Amino acid sequence: MNDALNSVFRPKSVAIVGASRFPGKIGYEILRNLKEYGYKGKIYPVNPAADKILGIKCYHNVLEVPGSIDLAIISIPAKFVPPVIDQLAEKGTKAAVVISSGFSEVGNRELEEDLIRRARRGGIRIIGPNVFGVLYSPTRLNATFGPRDVRPGKIAFITQSGALGIALMGWTVTEKIGLSAVVSVGNKADVDDADLLSWFREDENTKVVLIYMEGVVDGRRFLKEARLTTKVKPIIVLKAGRSKKGMAAASSHTGSMAGADVVYSASFKQAGVLRAENLEQAFDWAIAFSAERFPKGNKVVIITNGGGVGVMATDSCEAAGLEVFDPPEDLKREFKKYMPEFGSAKNPIDLTGMATHEEFRGAMRSAIKHKAVDCIIALYCETAVSDPIKIAEVIKEVFDLSNKPITATMIGGERVNEAMAFLKENGVPVYPDTERAVSAMAALVRWMERRSL
Amino acid sequence: MNDALNSVFRPKSVAIVGASRFPGKIGYEILRNLKEYGYKGKIYPVNPAADKILGIKCYHNVLEVPGSIDLAIISIPAKFVPPVIDQLAEKGTKAAVVISSGFSEVGNRELEEDLIRRARRGGIRIIGPNVFGVLYSPTRLNATFGPRDVRPGKIAFITQSGALGIALMGWTVTEKIGLSAVVSVGNKADVDDADLLSWFREDENTKVVLIYMEGVVDGRRFLKEARLTTKVKPIIVLKAGRSKKGMAAASSHTGSMAGADVVYSASFKQAGVLRAENLEQAFDWAIAFSAERFPKGNKVVIITNGGGVGVMATDSCEAAGLEVFDPPEDLKREFKKYMPEFGSAKNPIDLTGMATHEEFRGAMRSAIKHKAVDCIIALYCETAVSDPIKIAEVIKEVFDLSNKPITATMIGGERVNEAMAFLKENGVPVYPDTERAVSAMAALVRWMERRSL
Repeated sequence: MNDALNSVFRPKSVAIVGASRFPGKIGYEILRNLKEYGYKGKIYPVNPAADKILGIKCYHNVLEVPGSIDLAIISIPAKFVPPVIDQLAEKGTKAAVVISSGFSEVGNRELEEDLIRRARRGGIRIIGPNVFGVLYSPTRLNATFGPRDVRPGKIAFITQSGALGIALMGWTVTEKIGLSAVVSVGNKADVDDADLLSWFREDENTKVVLIYMEGVVDGRRFLKEARLTTKVKPIIVLKAGRSKKGMAAASSHTGSMAGADVVYSASFKQAGVLRAENLEQAFDWAIAFSAERFPKGNKVVIITNGGGVGVMATDSCEAAGLEVFDPPEDLKREFKKYMPEFGSAKNPIDLTGMATHEEFRGAMRSAIKHKAVDCIIALYCETAVSDPIKIAEVIKEVFDLSNKPITATMIGGERVNEAMAFLKENGVPVYPDTERAVSAMAALVRWMERRSL
Repeated sequence: MNDALNSVFRPKSVAIVGASRFPGKIGYEILRNLKEYGYKGKIYPVNPAADKILGIKCYHNVLEVPGSIDLAIISIPAKFVPPVIDQLAEKGTKAAVVISSGFSEVGNRELEEDLIRRARRGGIRIIGPNVFGVLYSPTRLNATFGPRDVRPGKIAFITQSGALGIALMGWTVTEKIGLSAVVSVGNKADVDDADLLSWFREDENTKVVLIYMEGVVDGRRFLKEARLTTKVKPIIVLKAGRSKKGMAAASSHTGSMAGADVVYSASFKQAGVLRAENLEQAFDWAIAFSAERFPKGNKVVIITNGGGVGVMATDSCEAAGLEVFDPPEDLKREFKKYMPEFGSAKNPIDLTGMATHEEFRGAMRSAIKHKAVDCIIALYCETAVSDPIKIAEVIKEVFDLSNKPITATMIGGERVNEAMAFLKENGVPVYPDTERAVSAMAALVRWMERRSL
């Protein structure tokens, strides 16, 4: 089975069945993404009426393609898909992504069953149908009709919702979030979350798996694969359809049997899966996991130039299970070097509004080097006496000193936006609100705790 | 008392005691903000050693100032402040903002008591000490050393934390959030939240009051003023020091007696005060209140082009007390005109990924005009077939058709950012996550419910 998914993510050749000459058409956009995102393998556009598209030689049908086809991307009217599957089987193709809609999601179960029957017979694994495609940044494979310029990174994103998935691809670009993979699973008629987990578990380019799901069909299999995966890397699930109304909506949207939400929650917990409550939180956590730093315990030091944000973060820590512990005397003495008389060396460490990047550097270095400290949450409020860019540089500098996790919050205007962009580009998890920086750190701690069970 | 606060927000003349010639110094930055933000009254810089600063004639002490001084901004070393208060009393000044620190916040209670004693004797109300100043956009008064270019708007922001307050001023600018006022209350030695509530209650330029507080001294008075205020406009409180550790930190930060958090929660509820859990939420709600539209009930229609976000919003609505109700048949028939066969006219209304701004317009117009609908949550995922800017224009167009509230979420890349900026500039509450759009709408409903008690 992994063989087939290797063909999906690391194909030596890709055929686009239904490649189109017309910009805006799905069969054109996928071909263009594939070409322009930098895929290095062979590309075979298949179109009965065209000779060349985007400068690439076309074939009238898949059987005409001279070489082998590792992966087929199919975007033709639904009823024509099953016969193409037979032809692909003849070519020895191992995997196909069926973009086409018009299957079970519109009530056409028979056609979907026919498709899967032929695929099984021909030894082809199917992603979809009813999907927007697959992206894998390490092989520069963008076989989607979504945004092209996705940033390479360590998050594999699996989505059951198409519109949301495409929109989020664009969002990750502007937010400077890197992805290893995007998989639109659509109707999940064959390949499902469990299959993908088993592949991403082994994938060294993926450090965290983020799944948007409305439901799973084979819960037992999902949990088995999830349990094996969370032994080596975290899984974050955003499961919609928590409420009664939401469940009904999910079932009309993707035809999923949503199932009682409490069952999902309990099962996720048992399997060590982290369940996020909303989109923002899911990505906030994934960003923190992308940094690949894990706290040995829950003892946090909060370092700030704003008393108020220190208090708020302390509240959030207590609620999230992080211990804002009383620092040992030697560490307190260190902290006192970097604050005026009226600062506070008790956790949260309040460097006061007079702090510059020098005080942040001193206090953060002292904290990161001390063995009693498991992790740091750095909180910065823009002031007239400090430069946000220099603060960001100091945070990055201290981040590089050890393997202890750091999350940060920066609040302010245009310069703070620049400083946050710098941190994002350098892989330091930074958030615009204290509670989000705390929540991300708490997710790391929770994962370590579950992992050690 | 309102007289004195009129002098704070609508002064005919302002003296800056401790005006400085040196950029970067507080006494310079306040003078510059005052001048460049466009204040039209008389400005009197007071500095014993200067003749002119920023082109404005200086006076060597307040008694030398020729005209009357409505408001004094004082930024000189703490120990020199009390004598200046006596001189101001002689001039008949009604209000002073004491920027200077070095009072009770560093343990110097005696000096603070001396200051207040003299102020009471002289009939002067004091804001502070230990503050960054006061801003009131209707009179173009920016007497702070924070950012200058604050956007005029309807939110009065009162903050007990200085660094946080200044940082948030800058943040509101980049987020395109408008403010009527910013008041740094610092040590609250005289004027406190209760006094300010009584003034903002009558202020027609303020439509919602947002308070960051760590504690109040006279809880009874606060609640009395809060109760009177929430009869006419909403109050959102972000109260830090919820947790035991946070309470301790708050008390070391501002010397507030934080008090048991449950007591605060219960009192807020009784007074109709909305308590936000974090910064982001507090401003999310304030933005929704700025639109000045209030739902008659909790019956919401969710309109989306992304099934997944529709399901997530439905979950959030159920948790927040909004009813995702089954639309009447006539409305369903209307909705069906704007979606393909496989769309859903059951709430959430799924226009499907094929929807353009035309379908959004049709469905949103039908919903807003129907008497069964109290409010709309519009959710957009960027797709290849739709233009985010046109979607935003349609949302604004429908927003203008009635007085029913609309909140929106838009997810996608650069074009979506532009579209969201357009909505923000036009006063339409828009958020990057479905849960936040729902939470803001729920705050409106909650306020209406409490108000009608």
